[in-house]
Order: sequence, then structure tokens, then C-alpha cells
Amino acid sequence: MKQATATATPNLALVKYWGKRDSNLILPAAGSLSLTLDIFPTTTTVEVREDLRADDFSLNGITQTGVPAERVTQFLRHVRELAGSNSFARVTSHNEAPTAAGLASSASGFAALATAASAAYGLDLSQRDLSRLARRGSGSACRSVIPRVAVWHAGNDDETSFAEEVAAPAMAMVILVVDGAKKAVSSREAMRSTARTSPFYAAWITSTEATLREMLEACATDDFARIGEITELNALRMHATIQACDPPIRYLAPRSVAAFDRVAELRNSGVPAYATADAGPNVAVLTRPEYTSQVAAALQDLGTTHIAHAGQGAHLLTTGEESS
Amino acid sequence: MKQATATATPNLALVKYWGKRDSNLILPAAGSLSLTLDIFPTTTTVEVREDLRADDFSLNGITQTGVPAERVTQFLRHVRELAGSNSFARVTSHNEAPTAAGLASSASGFAALATAASAAYGLDLSQRDLSRLARRGSGSACRSVIPRVAVWHAGNDDETSFAEEVAAPAMAMVILVVDGAKKAVSSREAMRSTARTSPFYAAWITSTEATLREMLEACATDDFARIGEITELNALRMHATIQACDPPIRYLAPRSVAAFDRVAELRNSGVPAYATADAGPNVAVLTRPEYTSQVAAALQDLGTTHIAHAGQGAHLLTTGEESS
Repeated sequence: MKQATATATPNLALVKYWGKRDSNLILPAAGSLSLTLDIFPTTTTVEVREDLRADDFSLNGITQTGVPAERVTQFLRHVRELAGSNSFARVTSHNEAPTAAGLASSASGFAALATAASAAYGLDLSQRDLSRLARRGSGSACRSVIPRVAVWHAGNDDETSFAEEVAAPAMAMVILVVDGAKKAVSSREAMRSTARTSPFYAAWITSTEATLREMLEACATDDFARIGEITELNALRMHATIQACDPPIRYLAPRSVAAFDRVAELRNSGVPAYATADAGPNVAVLTRPEYTSQVAAALQDLGTTHIAHAGQGAHLLTTGEESS
Repeated sequence: MKQATATATPNLALVKYWGKRDSNLILPAAGSLSLTLDIFPTTTTVEVREDLRADDFSLNGITQTGVPAERVTQFLRHVRELAGSNSFARVTSHNEAPTAAGLASSASGFAALATAASAAYGLDLSQRDLSRLARRGSGSACRSVIPRVAVWHAGNDDETSFAEEVAAPAMAMVILVVDGAKKAVSSREAMRSTARTSPFYAAWITSTEATLREMLEACATDDFARIGEITELNALRMHATIQACDPPIRYLAPRSVAAFDRVAELRNSGVPAYATADAGPNVAVLTRPEYTSQVAAALQDLGTTHIAHAGQGAHLLTTGEESS
């Protein structure tokens, strides 16, 4: 029996991934850029065992069935193909993110799983290949493999679509959980509806490609203010694109809008703060590390705040081999 | 001396006008459709006098200068050209809309002014030509000339860009004034920024043309639910288009979003209610006349509500000739 344990954290996109070019290989329609966080890790152990007759997946102590289990099995099937193995695996995963915080646990989950499974099955992957592998589980997981700031190159095919680190100024995030309720429309469903019914989808993809080039330039020139402006602009454009669906999908709640207003006020008072939001009501505020407490204090009446700094990317904690 | 007094009310667009093809002639980039309201009239008297050496414009008892006065003078210059007159006019206007309610007093204002000025200068215009004339003052004023439901045909030129009545089911509006503050960015400025910086502008125009065709079909088939769905969809798409500007322009306040949520809840409980919003934080709810009180009650904790039914369009109140 071979086993490996890995950990990974969520990432928050400053240039959003919203739209697939190929939903089988999970190739995105445009590139994106994110900050890997240092909070809410998923820690996953993969044991490759000869005695299993199927894969087995438990999350936070509960054996999973249905779609979550199928996604893990499908992913492990791909790993087995790469490794030339026929053995099933037991996957034991723990996720510390608050339930339904909408903090994309699929990114940390598949980054940790890719790292642990590739080691347990004896693959020795480069960071790039690990990122490509994680992408197959969940698109944005390819970015959680990478430390600090990651650019996900859209690429043309499985080989060329991966994330890698880019140098950038020191950044931190204040995450405001404004609503614990499960969101009305899942990201997958909303992404499909966007491609089918939003008249703005094509322009969203084209403009995001231009936005990413600008963002990489802002990172290269250490221009934090421009990074922040682009972050807020790109988030609002993503929400605009989704809102234009037929029927409309509105993810921002009254308190989400209040948070964007509050962040604008902070900026007017000289605090470097820029708001973003994924497909849900929560708001994340990009700021400089030294302003996190001030930003969190300004938002605290709107919900629960969490402070995050740049994380180190997915990595192995232990590997081992034992006779079972 | 010849004089005429006319009155006109605001209109609320169910398919929005947002974007000009020609800002001199005020030709819109796409057609639109609106309900003329029966509240907040502007009443305007135009006296054509030989003894004036310039036009003179007072609003609610205050003599106007600067941009408001220039817009009136420019409009009267056009009327004088049509009438072959060299005489200046005194314009006395009263507007009953609550200050800064964002209820487009320029539409009722120029519809009343076009009606009074054309009569005072001796022009005998058809409703269509009156609509074209009002359009020269402020685009959406061409719709306030028309009773009940008006479609504004985008047209190709000054001749073909006018509003006219379309048959439609009985409708009413509940207007929620959520914020009395002056809005941050004027409609004119935001419209210009949208055309220049929103990547969604071209698709907004194309999709609005398709939306208007669908709306006219829904009116023709007396399909109130579809009229409502299109109204809400089109409003959210307009706000999405504006939000995508660089820098972003957000008009919807937390309470605006709360109103959209409240309206969705009303619908879920069987009330025919659909939300829309112009370039500001206020929300207007399209409903059937018999539901106005229920809709207003559901929104009252979010601001001040006003109930409006279909209005009769701009019309003359008095005309006269007296020796001065």
C-alpha cells in the first residue's frame, strides 16, 4: 500500500474564470489570475490499496456518494491512466472552510487530491503538470497548486492550459461572508446559462483576455492600485455578464452591494482596498497586508470577516509505503 | 402675444433607451418602449412676446441660467426655425416631481415644452411630429407625448425617429424612491461612458433590438407575464452594461437590490410584479392596476412609494392670444 497526504487552500481570482472552451478537458475560454490564500485548507490522504474493489471517498468523516464521489472517481481514473495502475484508492479529506461560505472548496479539494493522488500512485509531476492535473478535477484548482499569485494560461489544449506563479506586490484579502445560505444557482449551472443566454458572454471573454494582459503588466510593474482597480472592474463585469442571463441571475445581495460601497468609501479615505466577488453573495476585499484589520473593522457589521494572506500552494505533508 | 399652456408626465421605460446613434438629432441606437405615467406632471406656459430680447425660462418660480436655460433656448431656436419666427419666448414651468427622485423630469419637461411652444408659435403638429419635436429636447421626451404605452422607433433620421402608441394590457407602476440623494454620475455622462468604455455596449444595443421585438409581440398578445419578464430582464441588462464601464458605474444601492429581491418574493407568492430601474437607485415595479396597494405595502420599509397608472400623454391646457 502506498499513501500520501497533501494540503491545499482556496484561491481568489482577481481576473475571473467564467466560461469554458472545452468542458471535458476543462479548458477555460480566457485566462485568469488569482491569489492563493493561507486559510481554509483542505487536507487529503490517498491510500492506494490492492484490497479495494472501488474507490472510496470520505469528506469530513462522511462517506460521499453521488456526484461528489463520481467526480473523485473520474479524477482518480485519469491518475491511474497516467500511472498505469489498476488499483483503487481510499480518499480521506478534511475541509476547514465554513460550510456554504461559497469559498470554492472544489479548488482546494482538487489541488490537494491531485497532489496526494499523484504521489500515492507514484507519479513524479512537475508543478506545471500537477497544475494541469488539478485542472481536470475543477478548473480553478489548477491555480490552488501554485503559491501566492498564479496566472492560469488559457492554452489551446491539455498541454498548454496550466497555472504558474507570477511575481506581484504583497497582497492580502479580507473575506466577508454576508450570507450563510446556499446560493440559488450553482456556478456550473450559471456558467452554462451565461454561455447560452447572456448577450454579453462573447464580449466578456474578449475583454477578460485584454484585462489579463493589463493585470500581468500591473503585476510586473508592482502597481498595486492598478491591480486593485482591475480586480474590481473585472469582478463587476463578471457579475454584469451573469446578470444579463435570461432569466437573470443575481448573485450580489443588498449587503454585497453595501460592501462594495463601503470599500469605495475606504478608498476615498486613503485605504488601498478593492472589492471582488465570486458567484455568490460574499465579498472579498483585496488590500495591502498592513491594512487587513482596518478593512475587516469597516465591514464587520455586514457579516463575518476572515483575513487571509498569500498561501504557499498545494504541497505534500507525508508520503509512505506500508504493508497492509 | 401668443401663449399656450401644456402639461406632460414622466414615462418609465420597460425596454430602455441607453445609447445614442446621433447625439445632435438625438437618434437612439435602439428602439424602446414605455408606460406614460399619470403622476408628477410638468406644466409649462410659453408666451411668445415681441418685447423680449432673449428667451426667459423659470422653473418652479426660479429663473434658470446655465445649462438648463441653454437647453430650453436651443430647443426654442429649433421651434422658431420650424415656425419662421424671430420672437423670443417666456417659458414658465412647474414640476411636481419630488426633487432628485430621479424620475426623468426632462422627459415630462420637454414633452410639455414641445406641446406648449409649438402651439404658441402657431405650429399645428400631428402627434407624431410633436413626438419628433420633443425628442430634440430630450430623447425620452418623445415618449411622454404619447398616452399609455409608447414605442419609440429608433428610425434612421429625424423623420423616422418618433414614438407612437401601442395597444397593451392594463398596467400600473409602484415607484420606490430609495434614496433622495443626487446620483453620482449623470445619465448623460454615464451614457457617454458606456458607449466608450463598456465592452458590452454593442451587444446591449443588438440584444435590445431583439428584446423590443419580443416586447411588441407580448403587448400584441396581451401577455402581461412576458411583458413583466422582459421588463426586468432588460433593466438588469442595462445596469449590467453600465456596471461594466471603466471605471465601473453602479447605480443600484443595497435597498435597490433588496427591492428586486422583494419583488421576486412577491412573484413567488403569486403577485404579478416585475422590477425595473433607470439610471439611479430608485426601483419601479410594474404590476396590474389591482395589485398596486399590495406591492406598495411590500416595499414601504425600503423608502417612499408612489403609485402611478397609465397617463394620457402631453396635451394642451389653454391657448390664447392677447395684446400685451
